[in-house]
Amino acid sequence: MSGRNPTEPSPAQKPGEFDLIGRYFAPLAGPGAFGLGDDAAVLTPPPGQQLVFTADAIIAGVHFLADDPAGDVAAKLLAVNLSDLAAMGAVGAGYLITTAWPRVLDEDWIADFAQGLGTAQAEHEIALLGGDTVATDGPMCLSLTAIGELPMGSAIRRNGAKAGDNIYVSGRIGDAGVGLRILCDGLMDGTTPDHQAAVERYRRPRPRLALGQALRGLASACIDISDGLVADLGHLAAQSRAAMTVDLAAIPLSPLAGLIGGAAAAIVAGDDYELLFTAAPDDELRLLDAGQETGTTVSRIGRVTAGRGVEVVDAAGVKVNLAQPGYRHF
Amino acid sequence: MSGRNPTEPSPAQKPGEFDLIGRYFAPLAGPGAFGLGDDAAVLTPPPGQQLVFTADAIIAGVHFLADDPAGDVAAKLLAVNLSDLAAMGAVGAGYLITTAWPRVLDEDWIADFAQGLGTAQAEHEIALLGGDTVATDGPMCLSLTAIGELPMGSAIRRNGAKAGDNIYVSGRIGDAGVGLRILCDGLMDGTTPDHQAAVERYRRPRPRLALGQALRGLASACIDISDGLVADLGHLAAQSRAAMTVDLAAIPLSPLAGLIGGAAAAIVAGDDYELLFTAAPDDELRLLDAGQETGTTVSRIGRVTAGRGVEVVDAAGVKVNLAQPGYRHF
Repeated sequence: MSGRNPTEPSPAQKPGEFDLIGRYFAPLAGPGAFGLGDDAAVLTPPPGQQLVFTADAIIAGVHFLADDPAGDVAAKLLAVNLSDLAAMGAVGAGYLITTAWPRVLDEDWIADFAQGLGTAQAEHEIALLGGDTVATDGPMCLSLTAIGELPMGSAIRRNGAKAGDNIYVSGRIGDAGVGLRILCDGLMDGTTPDHQAAVERYRRPRPRLALGQALRGLASACIDISDGLVADLGHLAAQSRAAMTVDLAAIPLSPLAGLIGGAAAAIVAGDDYELLFTAAPDDELRLLDAGQETGTTVSRIGRVTAGRGVEVVDAAGVKVNLAQPGYRHF
Repeated sequence: MSGRNPTEPSPAQKPGEFDLIGRYFAPLAGPGAFGLGDDAAVLTPPPGQQLVFTADAIIAGVHFLADDPAGDVAAKLLAVNLSDLAAMGAVGAGYLITTAWPRVLDEDWIADFAQGLGTAQAEHEIALLGGDTVATDGPMCLSLTAIGELPMGSAIRRNGAKAGDNIYVSGRIGDAGVGLRILCDGLMDGTTPDHQAAVERYRRPRPRLALGQALRGLASACIDISDGLVADLGHLAAQSRAAMTVDLAAIPLSPLAGLIGGAAAAIVAGDDYELLFTAAPDDELRLLDAGQETGTTVSRIGRVTAGRGVEVVDAAGVKVNLAQPGYRHF
């Protein structure tokens, strides 16, 4: 395999790395990013605030489909990272993005990507701080680091769930899994608004930032659902050293969950990016209020007990057997 | 192209994403990273400090060679980012890494990578804050975001060079380009310590963090050399709205620069990760002291004038024609 050869000329008509950055990404730069024209961005943390950091990468064909609209891919990349900030109770402060584009460049795709990123960052009141643009012979590989802020000491961790707490989830479960199935199986012909909403959810997840902030000091533990409800609840259980029991009948389900096999399948499907959290029963009214104030439904779906692991039970209290929870990359 | 299928089982003997993170990367986690077991890391900025952010991605076959040792690849990924912090005058505070490994996983490679990362982060007194691990069918794609800190208002920008300033560079130019040529052309048989040093420089660049800090309040503009001396000086010239004239004979050259075509080739080769900066002539003695105190040679290589662009002249003052400066990804 050959290394890069800095003296090899490129055809003059092709835009270079700096052309792409200047044309499409510099307009997204926030204060302190110097128009992406410097070595690094500078950020002054507000007094009394802590900063929060998370990074996620997405790969064409794994985390998004090759024919997903470019603007949706950009919005999703930002959203999945902001969803991690939401789970900590933080708000977005800025982000950095590194993009490995295919070497045979589709500049229209990049233009659409940048436009979608601009729309999404405006919606979430966050701006670009920096990044890098390279080329790959493989599938597109996009990485984003999100920076959030929250008042000192107010981060909601995964390790605070206690026996006796209830388990809650925001929104509906299974929509993204249904959306993916619709796209993969070509079920879009003659579809209903529910079908379209499911596809929209898969392509453009909504990070629950307002709810996350409202949960500060209220939720004992919180995580966002990326790998699937059961898998992510498993992380809460492991970090909190507690057991979690989920009532299958209490799951707020996608109206089209039947397309992927119903509730038992929906809770092992990923990509919903809802918040999954625990709280003391006494806080339930405040929790429901927090949901209402932030325009999000909040459903109680189970309880935390002493022990380890996650168990799903049906209406009769009988344990439900599940497919392998969560996606494995390797 | 098929999307991911969360219910598809993986062979039980293969380590999953979380196994890899727990086994190899959790031991590198710093304070506030919660052992990589939470949604995001929390960092409390020291009072009076600003934070600095930069991100770089590297691709197998482009930024490193497929048979480069894994530990060197890790060290290089961290170093190229820390080099950007050095150019701003910042010190490292933490970093996040996203890795797209080949789907057919070489766990030994990952173990060596993590070990090299651990050694490098210890050397630079910086710790892992978070990241993501995914799989790709294409070449390995590694992205790192580095977070630095510096006293409020002390960042060295690219835009401060003024007509009358001198231009300086740290260390030697061309070593990395020579090292790459040695590796690509299989010239390692019967090599000298100079050959080995050049390969070492290509594989394990040394970010000039101590010099960068010493240049705060002293350098009028600074950048690190990643794309090549001429290309990176072009960025300083553009951002500072000034012209830069380089004396080819004053360039501190790799002793093996002849292998790649001498000085005129060395200054368009990349990857040296030396600091390239400007300062008022009155500050030269302090600059040379700063170099000496940080164990780095500092050489005056030219001057800033009114105008635009970069010009390289020979000992007789005649303009030198150069190959296309800098590497183009597209």
